[in-house]
Amino acid sequence: MPKISKKGQQMPESPIRKLVPYSEIAKKRGTKVYHLNIGQPDIKTPEVAMNSIKNIDIKVLEYSHSAGFESYRRKLADYYQKHNLPVNIEDIIITTGGSEALLFAMGSTMDTDDEIIIPEPFYANYNGFSTASGVKVVPVISTIDEGFALPPIADFEKLITSKTKAILICNPGNPTGYLYSKEEIVQLAELVKKHDLFLIADEVYREFIYDGDEHFSVMNVPGIEQHAIMIDSVSKRYSMCGARIGCIVSKNKEVMGAAMKFAQARLSPPTFAQIASEAALDTPQSYFDEVITEYKDRRDTLIAELNQIEGVKVATPKGAFYCIAKLPVKNADNFAQWLLESFDFNGETVMVAPAAGFYSTPNVGLDEVRIAYVLKKEDLIKSVRILKEALKVYTE
Amino acid sequence: MPKISKKGQQMPESPIRKLVPYSEIAKKRGTKVYHLNIGQPDIKTPEVAMNSIKNIDIKVLEYSHSAGFESYRRKLADYYQKHNLPVNIEDIIITTGGSEALLFAMGSTMDTDDEIIIPEPFYANYNGFSTASGVKVVPVISTIDEGFALPPIADFEKLITSKTKAILICNPGNPTGYLYSKEEIVQLAELVKKHDLFLIADEVYREFIYDGDEHFSVMNVPGIEQHAIMIDSVSKRYSMCGARIGCIVSKNKEVMGAAMKFAQARLSPPTFAQIASEAALDTPQSYFDEVITEYKDRRDTLIAELNQIEGVKVATPKGAFYCIAKLPVKNADNFAQWLLESFDFNGETVMVAPAAGFYSTPNVGLDEVRIAYVLKKEDLIKSVRILKEALKVYTE
Ligand SMILES: Cc1ncc(COP(=O)(O)O)c(C=O)c1O
Ligand SMILES: Cc1ncc(COP(=O)(O)O)c(C=O)c1O
Repeated sequence: MPKISKKGQQMPESPIRKLVPYSEIAKKRGTKVYHLNIGQPDIKTPEVAMNSIKNIDIKVLEYSHSAGFESYRRKLADYYQKHNLPVNIEDIIITTGGSEALLFAMGSTMDTDDEIIIPEPFYANYNGFSTASGVKVVPVISTIDEGFALPPIADFEKLITSKTKAILICNPGNPTGYLYSKEEIVQLAELVKKHDLFLIADEVYREFIYDGDEHFSVMNVPGIEQHAIMIDSVSKRYSMCGARIGCIVSKNKEVMGAAMKFAQARLSPPTFAQIASEAALDTPQSYFDEVITEYKDRRDTLIAELNQIEGVKVATPKGAFYCIAKLPVKNADNFAQWLLESFDFNGETVMVAPAAGFYSTPNVGLDEVRIAYVLKKEDLIKSVRILKEALKVYTE
Repeated sequence: MPKISKKGQQMPESPIRKLVPYSEIAKKRGTKVYHLNIGQPDIKTPEVAMNSIKNIDIKVLEYSHSAGFESYRRKLADYYQKHNLPVNIEDIIITTGGSEALLFAMGSTMDTDDEIIIPEPFYANYNGFSTASGVKVVPVISTIDEGFALPPIADFEKLITSKTKAILICNPGNPTGYLYSKEEIVQLAELVKKHDLFLIADEVYREFIYDGDEHFSVMNVPGIEQHAIMIDSVSKRYSMCGARIGCIVSKNKEVMGAAMKFAQARLSPPTFAQIASEAALDTPQSYFDEVITEYKDRRDTLIAELNQIEGVKVATPKGAFYCIAKLPVKNADNFAQWLLESFDFNGETVMVAPAAGFYSTPNVGLDEVRIAYVLKKEDLIKSVRILKEALKVYTE
């Protein structure tokens, strides 16, 4: 029997996927599960987007341009410019989700055994894309004690070798909810200039920022035009995860030339979803205002409730819709399993994502979980109550 | 300025893309261009597929299962079984086009510097997917004189090294239109069993077979269940190229396990397109009968007309909608450019795909072009007339 590749063996399993069998057990024993583990918002997709595909009149569903519809790219450039990002149509390639944009960014900038430095905890699929690209992830630890702020630049410099090609950040961060300050982004900019690295910024949560803070994009730093690569997506912005539309954005013509060759090989991004994503650009501001108000409310509720549990520590997220909470348990993996397998409070339990899967360094974050606030406020309150009761009786 | 990857530099450009600037020139000088160069059918997408997405009632456009909707996979398994392919729901992962299925197949079976043997001429993007996967393509030449039949097994065996992990075939073939016989598939099956290799079969043109021949799938060979990987797609079958839905099919649980991890990393295939693809499975047989009749008619016309040109040699395609024609020119690349740049017959010209781009061996197929019969019969007749007139005056 032929053997699968090492790559295929090494591809990481999603940290949440491992828990799925246990959530089946919870269901089987009739326990209701509140899902604090997922990144799938419950927010309604804008009607303007959903309606757009009901009205299409297409006879032959053709391949689109490999970089995506020109009309969409044009409108998207306008959108960025309205948000003060100096992005032109030729700086954009439409991709199948931010996921594919990350693959194109890695493939265009890195070869087998090259290294990418990523502050951890980070979006777990960065591991998968790196493995698929043959690239080695070099983590730099950010800590809950520092609220997941950018690690000192000296920590990055210690890790840079001749194989280092890029730094990847997520801003605001999944799973931390951390929003990098302008100063932090400028520090990173200096660093990538000094060492001639790419700075890949995953900004798919850009719109989700609370407390009136401002998002500072890598596209906004003068002098790193040739270094900066921005990853974007409609998935979260418009609650259109199933569309599978994102983009890679850069002013570096060589990067875009290489990314375009990757794009041409896979022919085109999905047509229906591009139509819906283009239409989504007409989503009224009121939609975002409501969504942000809703998330802020949820966040405030979640954090307030979590802070009332003895022994729980949480870094208040400034953006996105996740937070990392440190629990008074030895091993959050076991705890998460136990919640599903053995615990209930009035017939209900919760599913959380053990945070170890978001760290690349072994044995870090073992007592942490990621909690997504993609549930209604009442459900969040109930969920944290369940967590509190669980921690009272959990003894490991 | 940071440098892009070697991979990014080496990613091949599509053999057609190079001609695009020249087709712009043709347009500028007011010459109408018949496109014999593309693989985009002009056939209408089934209404049942297009209507399905007009009637959706989705509030939140969520990620689907990473392997695709269960309902779709179930119906697709039924479809295969009806076509006598022993495929069960657990043997299928829905992908973003056959393109992504090819990437998953390579990633799951091959590591950097591993080798894949492919009979050439082959679908040019196999080069791109191989480069993206860090895999080396080892071509084995099939010739127009043999009608692009399977090269002798001894030719394959000469190329097998310790790094060889798989053989990739396209059946029926793009760009050759060749349909492998049962005997040829069985020979390949013996070969992969003997050398413990994977046999990846790109069968996206399975439905397009003329002259009453039967398609013999790698899924139909007993004894190579652990070797066979089938690539499929809705793009051509239902003229739904823009959907971006395909699948990877295998009975090898390790391969499917690895492919599933690649699938999870990118979250899910596009939702709208899955809905349309699932609906497309209800396309009535009459649709295919009409399409096949149309293509057969086009093929017969094209081949008859081409055979009337002095010095042109063509291998009659038995399937798909392409053929390779050998022209009485030194360099088909230059000829294709000249057609667009300098020639017209009554204000019209043609665009053909130089075949060199479908060969991996340098300097092979220099006098060949790929012609796609995705145009109406009248246009095909006009196109070949133009080609004939052009060859009369072309002197290189
Ligand atoms: C940080 C981050 N980046 C990228 C993605 C990929 O999203 P998509 O491929 O749906 O655009 C996600 C999805 O959860 C994410 O959280
Ligand atoms: C032989 C072959 N395989 C695979 C593909 C990829 O098609 P898709 O990604 O649209 O399924 C094509 C498209 O032209 C093809 O000709």
